[in-house]
Amino acid sequence: MSLHPGEGLFSGLFARGAVAEATSDRAVLQAMLRVELALIRALQTCSLAPAQAADQLQAALKTSGFDLAALGAGAGAQGTPVPALLRALRERLPEPARSHLHAGATSQDIIDTALMLVAREALAIVLDDLDRALRACAGLAQRHRDTLIAGRTLLQDALPRTFGLTAANWLVGLHESRSELDHVRSHVLAAQLGGAVGTLAAYGDRGLDVMEAFAADLELAAPPLPWHTIRTRPARLAGALGVASGVMGKLAHDVVLLAQSEVAECAEGGAGERGGSSAMPHKRNPVAAIAVLACAGQTPGLVGAMLSAMVQEHERGAGSWQAEWQPLLALLTLTGSAAHATAELLEGLQVDAPRMRANLQAAGAELMSESLVGALADRLGRAQAAERVREGARRAREQGRPLEAILGEDEEVLGALGREGLEAALDPERYLGVSGALIDRALNLGSGGGS
Amino acid sequence: MSLHPGEGLFSGLFARGAVAEATSDRAVLQAMLRVELALIRALQTCSLAPAQAADQLQAALKTSGFDLAALGAGAGAQGTPVPALLRALRERLPEPARSHLHAGATSQDIIDTALMLVAREALAIVLDDLDRALRACAGLAQRHRDTLIAGRTLLQDALPRTFGLTAANWLVGLHESRSELDHVRSHVLAAQLGGAVGTLAAYGDRGLDVMEAFAADLELAAPPLPWHTIRTRPARLAGALGVASGVMGKLAHDVVLLAQSEVAECAEGGAGERGGSSAMPHKRNPVAAIAVLACAGQTPGLVGAMLSAMVQEHERGAGSWQAEWQPLLALLTLTGSAAHATAELLEGLQVDAPRMRANLQAAGAELMSESLVGALADRLGRAQAAERVREGARRAREQGRPLEAILGEDEEVLGALGREGLEAALDPERYLGVSGALIDRALNLGSGGGS
Amino acid sequence: MSLHPGEGLFSGLFARGAVAEATSDRAVLQAMLRVELALIRALQTCSLAPAQAADQLQAALKTSGFDLAALGAGAGAQGTPVPALLRALRERLPEPARSHLHAGATSQDIIDTALMLVAREALAIVLDDLDRALRACAGLAQRHRDTLIAGRTLLQDALPRTFGLTAANWLVGLHESRSELDHVRSHVLAAQLGGAVGTLAAYGDRGLDVMEAFAADLELAAPPLPWHTIRTRPARLAGALGVASGVMGKLAHDVVLLAQSEVAECAEGGAGERGGSSAMPHKRNPVAAIAVLACAGQTPGLVGAMLSAMVQEHERGAGSWQAEWQPLLALLTLTGSAAHATAELLEGLQVDAPRMRANLQAAGAELMSESLVGALADRLGRAQAAERVREGARRAREQGRPLEAILGEDEEVLGALGREGLEAALDPERYLGVSGALIDRALNLGSGGGS
Amino acid sequence: MSLHPGEGLFSGLFARGAVAEATSDRAVLQAMLRVELALIRALQTCSLAPAQAADQLQAALKTSGFDLAALGAGAGAQGTPVPALLRALRERLPEPARSHLHAGATSQDIIDTALMLVAREALAIVLDDLDRALRACAGLAQRHRDTLIAGRTLLQDALPRTFGLTAANWLVGLHESRSELDHVRSHVLAAQLGGAVGTLAAYGDRGLDVMEAFAADLELAAPPLPWHTIRTRPARLAGALGVASGVMGKLAHDVVLLAQSEVAECAEGGAGERGGSSAMPHKRNPVAAIAVLACAGQTPGLVGAMLSAMVQEHERGAGSWQAEWQPLLALLTLTGSAAHATAELLEGLQVDAPRMRANLQAAGAELMSESLVGALADRLGRAQAAERVREGARRAREQGRPLEAILGEDEEVLGALGREGLEAALDPERYLGVSGALIDRALNLGSGGGS
Repeated sequence: MSLHPGEGLFSGLFARGAVAEATSDRAVLQAMLRVELALIRALQTCSLAPAQAADQLQAALKTSGFDLAALGAGAGAQGTPVPALLRALRERLPEPARSHLHAGATSQDIIDTALMLVAREALAIVLDDLDRALRACAGLAQRHRDTLIAGRTLLQDALPRTFGLTAANWLVGLHESRSELDHVRSHVLAAQLGGAVGTLAAYGDRGLDVMEAFAADLELAAPPLPWHTIRTRPARLAGALGVASGVMGKLAHDVVLLAQSEVAECAEGGAGERGGSSAMPHKRNPVAAIAVLACAGQTPGLVGAMLSAMVQEHERGAGSWQAEWQPLLALLTLTGSAAHATAELLEGLQVDAPRMRANLQAAGAELMSESLVGALADRLGRAQAAERVREGARRAREQGRPLEAILGEDEEVLGALGREGLEAALDPERYLGVSGALIDRALNLGSGGGS
Repeated sequence: MSLHPGEGLFSGLFARGAVAEATSDRAVLQAMLRVELALIRALQTCSLAPAQAADQLQAALKTSGFDLAALGAGAGAQGTPVPALLRALRERLPEPARSHLHAGATSQDIIDTALMLVAREALAIVLDDLDRALRACAGLAQRHRDTLIAGRTLLQDALPRTFGLTAANWLVGLHESRSELDHVRSHVLAAQLGGAVGTLAAYGDRGLDVMEAFAADLELAAPPLPWHTIRTRPARLAGALGVASGVMGKLAHDVVLLAQSEVAECAEGGAGERGGSSAMPHKRNPVAAIAVLACAGQTPGLVGAMLSAMVQEHERGAGSWQAEWQPLLALLTLTGSAAHATAELLEGLQVDAPRMRANLQAAGAELMSESLVGALADRLGRAQAAERVREGARRAREQGRPLEAILGEDEEVLGALGREGLEAALDPERYLGVSGALIDRALNLGSGGGS
Repeated sequence: MSLHPGEGLFSGLFARGAVAEATSDRAVLQAMLRVELALIRALQTCSLAPAQAADQLQAALKTSGFDLAALGAGAGAQGTPVPALLRALRERLPEPARSHLHAGATSQDIIDTALMLVAREALAIVLDDLDRALRACAGLAQRHRDTLIAGRTLLQDALPRTFGLTAANWLVGLHESRSELDHVRSHVLAAQLGGAVGTLAAYGDRGLDVMEAFAADLELAAPPLPWHTIRTRPARLAGALGVASGVMGKLAHDVVLLAQSEVAECAEGGAGERGGSSAMPHKRNPVAAIAVLACAGQTPGLVGAMLSAMVQEHERGAGSWQAEWQPLLALLTLTGSAAHATAELLEGLQVDAPRMRANLQAAGAELMSESLVGALADRLGRAQAAERVREGARRAREQGRPLEAILGEDEEVLGALGREGLEAALDPERYLGVSGALIDRALNLGSGGGS
Repeated sequence: MSLHPGEGLFSGLFARGAVAEATSDRAVLQAMLRVELALIRALQTCSLAPAQAADQLQAALKTSGFDLAALGAGAGAQGTPVPALLRALRERLPEPARSHLHAGATSQDIIDTALMLVAREALAIVLDDLDRALRACAGLAQRHRDTLIAGRTLLQDALPRTFGLTAANWLVGLHESRSELDHVRSHVLAAQLGGAVGTLAAYGDRGLDVMEAFAADLELAAPPLPWHTIRTRPARLAGALGVASGVMGKLAHDVVLLAQSEVAECAEGGAGERGGSSAMPHKRNPVAAIAVLACAGQTPGLVGAMLSAMVQEHERGAGSWQAEWQPLLALLTLTGSAAHATAELLEGLQVDAPRMRANLQAAGAELMSESLVGALADRLGRAQAAERVREGARRAREQGRPLEAILGEDEEVLGALGREGLEAALDPERYLGVSGALIDRALNLGSGGGS
C-alpha cells in the first residue's frame, strides 16, 4: 500500500488520483529526508550545529536517489529503515553535517514525523477532491430540489421525497467528513521529537527549543509532549479517514442501488468504454461507485488495526508501533482514492428524473398512506383514519385495483376530505414536508460547520 | 452487552462502575420513553397536539414497567422494538395522547435519539472517571518528577528517564481522550427526527420547528438535517471511545509490564483478596490493569463494526443500521468500565522508587552511552566518540567488567573529559533533558486543550 | 452478550432461538460447575480424590443458585469469577470434597473448558437451525429448478439464470458452513487442563491420566498439550462462526435485494404483523433477512478481536485471554441467531416466479447478447458477431425499439441464423448452460462434503 | 500490498522472504495469464476451440511484458483489469486464438482463479518457512527439555516449568497452523469458472466438462458449483492465515518478553548490525520478533475485511468482491513474512539457561507454594496446609527473610514433611509434573494431526 500504488494492477480502483503518489514509499522516503533536514536546521537555530551543516545536507539531498530495496532490507535487520538511511546519507556528507545528522533523535522521531508530513500532503489532496465532490453534490441538491423520488426504507418504497434531499444528505456527510479531516490536518498532525526515550536529553536544556524549531521548520504543530507512545494522533487521523470512507461508501451504495436495472434512476457518466463489460455490451456498470465501495470495504479493519496498535510498550512499542505504518498509508491511499472516485461520480452522475417519477407513481397511492391517514385523522380520529386506509389497501390488493380508486368510492373518506381533499392527500408533491428547507440548510453549511 | 451488564458473571471486568447501569437495556428503554415524551411535548409546543397529551403520557410512564422480553420479541417480528412499545403504551393511554403518541415519527427517530441520550449519560460517567484518573495521574507526575527509571524502547533498557515523565505521558493521553469525548458529547451527539423518510412530512411546514422543540426538550443539539442514514455521529462517537480505550490500554499495559516479577517497579494497590490467586498465595496480580486491557482488546473490532455499518441503504439501512446498536452500547460499557478501572488503578498505584533506581543501576553505564558519546564528541568528533564507547562496551562484555571501569582506564576518554567530566557523563540524573519541563507542560494542559 | 440475551430489548434480532439460552451467563456458570465436577471425578478415577468427593459436589450443585452479580464482582477483584465461585462452593461442601475441589487446576482451566462446553451446546443448536435452513434451501432449489430469473452482476441485469440455481448457490454456502462448524465441534473443541502453568504439576506423574479422564467425563477431545496460551481452538471456532455468518449474510442480502419494491421477486412469509410498519401499513419488510444482516454485520469485528487476542503472554495472557470471553459468546449468539432467522426466512420465502419472468423480459433481448454473439460467431467470426449485436443494441436505443425487432430486420443476422435460429438465440430458456446439473450437484452434496 | 512489496521501504519487516515476489502485482498478472491459457486449453480439450489456439496464446505470453499501470487504469475504467488485459492480449494474438481467448468466461473467473494460484504459490512458501520454524522449535523443545524456567501467569512468577515445554507449546501452535494451511491449500483452494452469471451458458451442455478440464490444467480442485458469490473459500483461507499469524505473534511476543533487559533469558541471534541501534550501541533489539508482531498486528483487521466482504450481491458483488483483493494479498504477504521471520528467529534463538535458573531462584520459595501446600495437605488437610504456607509467606515478607528459612523453623511443617520432605517440596525440578511427557507429545505430533 506504499511503494507506488498508482502504478499497480488495481490502481484505478484503489490508488486513484494524486494521493497515490503522495503515499508512495518514495514519498515516505522524501519525507524522512525532509525531517532530517528540519532537525539539522533546528539544531542550527539553537546553536547546536554549525552554520553550514544544514546547507551541506540540503546539497546532499539533491544528489541522486536512494535504494529503496536496500533501505527495506535495513528495516528487516534493524527494525526501521532509518539506520540504513543514515549510513547512506553519511557516505554522502562532509563534516560537520555528517556528525550532526540525526543528532539526538531516534528512528521513531523521523518516521512518525515523516508520516505526519505524508498525511498532510495526502490530506490536502483528499480535501481538494472532497471539495470537488461537495460542489457537485451541491449542484445536484439545487438542480433536483423538486425532483420527486420514492423514499425507501429497508429497501421498500415508503414515502415521497426529492432527489435533491438525497443529495443534501450526502452533502452533509461529505461536509462533516471534510471539516473533520481539515481539523485533523490542522490540529492533530504534529511533529514528533523526543530522542531515544522522549526526554530530548541530547539537547541538554535546549530540548524544547529544538522541538519548537523543528516543528516550525516543518510547519507542523509542536505537541505539548513527545507522543511516541501516546498514539492519539495517528489513531484520530485513522478514525477521521474511516468515517470519511464510510460517508462516501454510503453515497456510492445509494448510486449502485439507484443504478440497478430495475430502478434505473441514476447512471454514471463517462464516455466510451467506461463501465462497459466485454462479455455484455449492453451493460453500463457503476464503476466509480464500485471503486468507492471497494475502498470503503477495506478501511474499517485498518482503523481497527490502528486502534489495536495504540497499546504500545513503555517508550517504544515492540511491534505495535511498526504495525501502524502500512495501515496508516493504506487508509490515506484508500480514502483519497475513494474521494477522487466520489468527485468523478458526482460530477458525472446522470439523473433520470422522469424515471424517478415513474417509479414513484408505480408505487401507487399506498406510498401516500401516511398522508391519507394524516388528512383523515382530523375528522375521523387517528385510529379510525388508519383503519380506513388499511382497509382500503386490503381491498385494493384483493380486487387488483388502485388504492385511489377504492378510496374514491369510500363515502366516509369522501365525506371527510371531499374529492379535492382526497386528491391533495394523494399528491406526492404536497407531502414533502420541509424538504426544500432542509436542502437550503445543507447548502448553507459553508465550510465552518460540522463541528 | 446491553441487558444489565453490571449484573453479569464478568461484570467486574467489563461492566465496572456506574456506566453499566447507564447502558443497560432498561436504560435504553427509559431513553426511548423519554424520547416519545419529548416528541409529544414538541408537538404541543408547535400546536400540533392538544395541551394535555404530554401530561397524559408522562402520567402513563409513571405506571409500572414494560416487559423487555416482549419488546425483544417484537423487535424480531418488526425489526425494531418500537412498534411493540407503542402498542404497550397505547394500551395505557387515553385520548388525545393515544392518537398523538409518536405522531409523524419513525422507529429510527426513537432509537437513534434514545441511543444519543444513553451515550450522553454514559459519557458523563466516563468523563467523571477520566477526571479521577487525570487527578491521580497528575499526582503521580508531580510526586515522581525526580524518580529515576530506565527508559525502555522495544522493551530494552535505553536511557534514563523519570517515572514522573511516564505519568505525564499517560496524562496527555487521558487529557486528549477526555477532551475529545467531551467535544463529542457536546457537539456530535444530536437529536434525530425526520419521520419515515427524513422529510418531516407529517408536520407540514412545521417540521423544523418540531425538530428544534424536540431537540431542545432533550437538551440535545438540533442537527442541520436528519442524520438517519448519514452515520457520522455514531461513527465519531465510536471512534472517540476507541481512542480513549487505546490510551487506557497503553497505560495499563505499562503497569502490567512494570509489575512483572522481574521488574517489580509498580504494583496495584487494594486490600485483601484483590489480585490474589487461589492457587498461588504469593501472587499479587495487576487485576485492574488486566481489566482495562481486556476491555481495550474488544473495542477496535467494535469500532470497525460501526464504521462498516455506515454504508446504509437509501433512507433506512436494511441490517446495517440495526447492526450499530449492540456495538455502540458495548463500546460505551467497555470504555466506561476501562475508565473506572483506570481511575482505581492510578489512585492505588504503588510505585517502588528504590526498585526503579536499582533496576536503572543494574543496567549499568551502557545506559549512558548516548550521554558519553555526546560528552566526548566535542573533543573527539562524533564518529571517534562513538567508536570509543562502542569499543569500551565491547571490552566490558568480554572482560565481564563494568563499562565505567573500562572507560575510567581509557586515556583518551580521561583526556577528553577528566574524571569529573566522566562521572558527570555517567550520571543519569544529569541526562534527563527537559523531563521536568515536559511534566510541567502536561500538568498545565488544563481542561481546554487537547483538541 | 452473555447474561440472558434472549430476554433483552433487541432479542428478536440478535438472540433468536434457543442459542440465547445456551450462551447466557447462567449457562456459562452451569458449565463451570460441570467442569469442576468433571475434575473431581477425574481425580477420583485416578485415585487422587476419595470416593465420595464427586458425589458430594454433585449434591451441592443441586442446591439453589449462585449470585451472578457477586461472582461478577469477584471477577473484578481477582480477574476471573472462579475464586469467588470456589469460595461459594466450599461453603456448601463437606470434606473431603471441599479439599479436593478444583485441586491442581487454575481458573483458566475452568473457564476455557466451560466455554468449550457452551460452544458445543450452542453449536448443536446452530447446526440444527442450519439443517432446517439446508432443507428449506434444497426445497427451493428443487422447486425452482426451471424458474427463470435475471442473473445480475454488479446489480445490473446480465444473463438469464434460474432461481433454483441461486438457491443452490446458497445451499453450497450453508453446507460448507455446516460442515466446517461440525468439524470444529467434533475436532477443534477440546478440554483444557494444565494447572497453573500447564505442567499438571499437582498431579505428580498422573497429569496425563487426569487430563484424559477429565476430557472423557466431559466428552470433549483431550488435546495433545494444554492450550492455555496457544489459542488456535477458540480462534478457529471464531473463524468458522464468522464464515457461517458471512454466508447467511450473503443469502439474506440477496433476499433483501429481491424483495425491493421495484424488483418484488421474493417476499418473506409470516403472518400478521410480521414485517409490518406502524407508520406505513402497505409495507412488508424483510425482517428476518434484516435480522440476519444485522447479526452478520457484527461478526467480522468480533473475529478480529479473537485473532488479536491470540498474542498472549507466557503461561497466561494479561488482558488478552480475558478479552476473548465476550466476543466468543457474542459470536455464538449472533451466528446462532442468524441461523435461526435464516431457517425461518428460507422456510417461509415467497417466490414470485411470474414476476421474475416479467423482470427478465423487461430486460429485453440485450440480456441475450452473449447468446446472440455466440450463435453468430460460427458464421461471422466472433469479432464481427459482437459488432453486429453491439450495433443492433445501439440502434435499438436510438430508435427506442426492442433489440429483437432490430435484429429481425438485419439481413446479415438473418442470413447467419435464420429466423428460427434467431429466436432460439433469444430464448432465455435455451441459454441456461448447465444450471440444472449444477443444482443437482448442490443437492447431492450430502453431509460429507465441503472439505 | 501487491506491486512488488519485496522492494519497498519496509520490506524487511512486512515482505520478508520469497513470499513477497509470489504476491506481487507482477505475480498476479502472470497468474491471470496462466488462467486464460488454462481456459483456452480446456476449450480445446472439449473441442470448443481449435487445436492451435492454446499454442498461439502460449507463444504470445512469451513476448514481452504488459504495462501494469495501463492495466491499473483499465481497472479504474471497467472495474477490473481484465478487459484491458484482453485488449492487450488480442493485439498480440492471431486468429483463431484471438476469437477464443476468454470465451465464455467473465473477469471474475480470471481474477478469482488467479488469486487461488497466487495463494497456492504463496502458501507453498509459507509452509516451507513453517517447516523450518517447526524443526527449529522441535530442536529447542528437545535441547531444553530440562531447562528450568519460571512459569509466568499474568506476567507474574507462578510455578516452575521448563523452557522445553514453552517451545513445545509453540510447536503445537505452529503445527496446527501448518496443518490447517496445508488443508486449505489442498482442499479449499479451487478453480472458479462460471461465466457471466455462473451458468457456464456459453459452453452449452459442456460447461461442467470445461470447468473440470480448466481446473485439471491448473491442478486446482474443481468445486461442486462456481463460487463467485459464495465466498467461503477466500474467507477460510483468510481465517487460516489470521490464525497462523496469531500463533506466530504469540511466540514472538514471548521472545520479546524473555529478551527484556530485566529478564534476559533469550536473545535473538544474528551477526553484525542485526538489531543494533544507532543511538544506543549497547542495545540488541529482538528485531525478528518485532517483525513478526508487526505483521501479526495487521492481520486481524484484514481477516475482518474478508469476512465483511462475504456479503456480496446476487451474481457479482458491487464493491464487496473487489474489496477482497488487496486484503487477501496482504494476508498472504504478511503471514508469509511472519513465517520467514519466525523461522529465522527460532533458528537463531539464544537461550540463556543459567539466567533462566537464576531468575527462577530469585523468585524464591514462594514459587513452590503450590508444591508445599500439596505436600503438606496429606498431613494437615488442604485448608490448614494452605494457611501454613500463606502465614509463612507473610512472615517472610515482614522479616525480609526467605520463605524457606521461615518454613524450616516451623515445627508443624517440619513435623509433617521432615527436612528432606521440605527440601523435596521446595525443589523446582521435582515439581514439573508431566512436562517431559508433554514435550514428547508435541514432538510426536508429526505432520498428520492438528485437526
